[in-house]
Amino acid sequence: MALVADDMHGVNAVILDRMQSKVGLIPELAGHLIAGGGKRMRPMLTLGCAALLGYSGNRHQKLAAAVEFIHTATLLHDDVVDGSGLRRGKRTANLIWGNPASVLVGDFLFSRAFELMVEDGSLRVLKILSHASAVIAEGEVDQLTTQRKIDTDEEQYLDIISAKTAALFAAACRIAPVVAEASDDAEVALEKYGRYLGIAFQLVDDVLDYGANQDVMGKGVGDDFRDGKVTLPVILAYARGSDEDRAFWRAAITGERTSDEDLAHAIALLRQTDALSETVERARHYGRRALDSLAQFPAGKAKSALSEAVEFAISRAY
Amino acid sequence: MALVADDMHGVNAVILDRMQSKVGLIPELAGHLIAGGGKRMRPMLTLGCAALLGYSGNRHQKLAAAVEFIHTATLLHDDVVDGSGLRRGKRTANLIWGNPASVLVGDFLFSRAFELMVEDGSLRVLKILSHASAVIAEGEVDQLTTQRKIDTDEEQYLDIISAKTAALFAAACRIAPVVAEASDDAEVALEKYGRYLGIAFQLVDDVLDYGANQDVMGKGVGDDFRDGKVTLPVILAYARGSDEDRAFWRAAITGERTSDEDLAHAIALLRQTDALSETVERARHYGRRALDSLAQFPAGKAKSALSEAVEFAISRAY
Repeated sequence: MALVADDMHGVNAVILDRMQSKVGLIPELAGHLIAGGGKRMRPMLTLGCAALLGYSGNRHQKLAAAVEFIHTATLLHDDVVDGSGLRRGKRTANLIWGNPASVLVGDFLFSRAFELMVEDGSLRVLKILSHASAVIAEGEVDQLTTQRKIDTDEEQYLDIISAKTAALFAAACRIAPVVAEASDDAEVALEKYGRYLGIAFQLVDDVLDYGANQDVMGKGVGDDFRDGKVTLPVILAYARGSDEDRAFWRAAITGERTSDEDLAHAIALLRQTDALSETVERARHYGRRALDSLAQFPAGKAKSALSEAVEFAISRAY
Repeated sequence: MALVADDMHGVNAVILDRMQSKVGLIPELAGHLIAGGGKRMRPMLTLGCAALLGYSGNRHQKLAAAVEFIHTATLLHDDVVDGSGLRRGKRTANLIWGNPASVLVGDFLFSRAFELMVEDGSLRVLKILSHASAVIAEGEVDQLTTQRKIDTDEEQYLDIISAKTAALFAAACRIAPVVAEASDDAEVALEKYGRYLGIAFQLVDDVLDYGANQDVMGKGVGDDFRDGKVTLPVILAYARGSDEDRAFWRAAITGERTSDEDLAHAIALLRQTDALSETVERARHYGRRALDSLAQFPAGKAKSALSEAVEFAISRAY
């Protein structure tokens, strides 16, 4: 964070400036989420990758803000899709202002993200982020179609999180070498770094949803459970469970057993089968692949910072 | 329509090709709306304006498809926002597949629209359409904040429809001179043509919502009434009404009187005060301004077609 602190001030200035609108509800609602304790992981990755490449301009600030706008738009829509009431420990925008406002302000931020990219003027960046946006939406729809389906397998799950989460991490990293006019090799490497980091990040998020570490996360524990989302912890526990356990999981995921006692039982099963720790282990695996992707870059502050980002993503589980 | 029939086949081919996804629900849901009897007004305007300028390439087909994708995305989101059950005489996507799928497939189509524009490669087109998209979202949020407020005035109403409807009509027209490398004058003129046509179109739509001509429209009559949307017919009837009438409108718009009898009474008041015919007259006014915007272009098939589009927009009221 220290490495990119100055740049981050620039990004925040762009964000605050460009979320304004003569329609007052837009900055009000957007500000709730944007000012509300987000980690700014994705724009920080753009800045960190730019630093790694020795980029000294300021184009990356506007583009990092665009990345954060896309992310914020997807959060607003996700909360509507999931009917969520809590995010980052605060009441969600859809709970306060209703679903219609959340959908439309999400659309506004998404459009504004593209306006920022157009101002920057790189068709290559526009290509990377418009494609990532389409992939994210595909991943979200895919997740919707597997919801409440206990026979979802690890491959399908990885496809979904690669799309819904890792695609934006990858794009956030990949636009840095474009702006820095670095080599194609650098672009491939940083795309990989972002993608693997994104997968690790989502795996840990899915562990956190079962309360591994409630402090870190504002989101209510058990949201995925009650929504019937088949995440890796569930896939592993289901595969490793007894007939009785499997019957429980089927009932839980189809929505027949979603009480607090059911959630407690689910967490007990996840622990008995080591499904949570195994999911964290999988996250470590992707974290290592993220680090390996940085091999070609020289050691230094920026590389250390990008390594710490991987450590941070995984350490949230503890 | 005949003028641009060949081009329209090309546009439809792009639409069908690019709404595909490995996630089957996306083409299923998108196809319901896209194949479901839309008028393709907006892409047709892009094609018509390109014909007016003698453009002979085929870049405009892909861009017209992008315009239709943006429109379709806004329809999907609008139906979620309004909780609509009918569109173009068919059950809405949100009713069949649920709000989550409609929100996310809208996001997909919106992203895909930008991918199409990036493939075309004109930053100028990207600027026009990303800005229009932000303005549309602003208009929709603005409409949301005036909902159930009987003191909304004609100026506010015109701001809203200029943003939520006319901005995309204007952008659809304006990208044609960009692609055709026509003069700035042509761009200004066609932007105006589209904007005024869009306003006329929305004014007539708002009349149709009170059942002026139920055959033309699949949408259920009275949707705006029940949603407490203060459209021009209501603004005029409220301004012209007796104290008793105004008390009725206040109760109706705040949602206290929304029965079928109330709707019938509302329509009777709209007729007594000539509010519907006066709204159509306002639409004619904007229609004339749209036609005047074409003055600089030579007479011919394309100009006739664009004039007919204005006539069509208004004639739907009869």
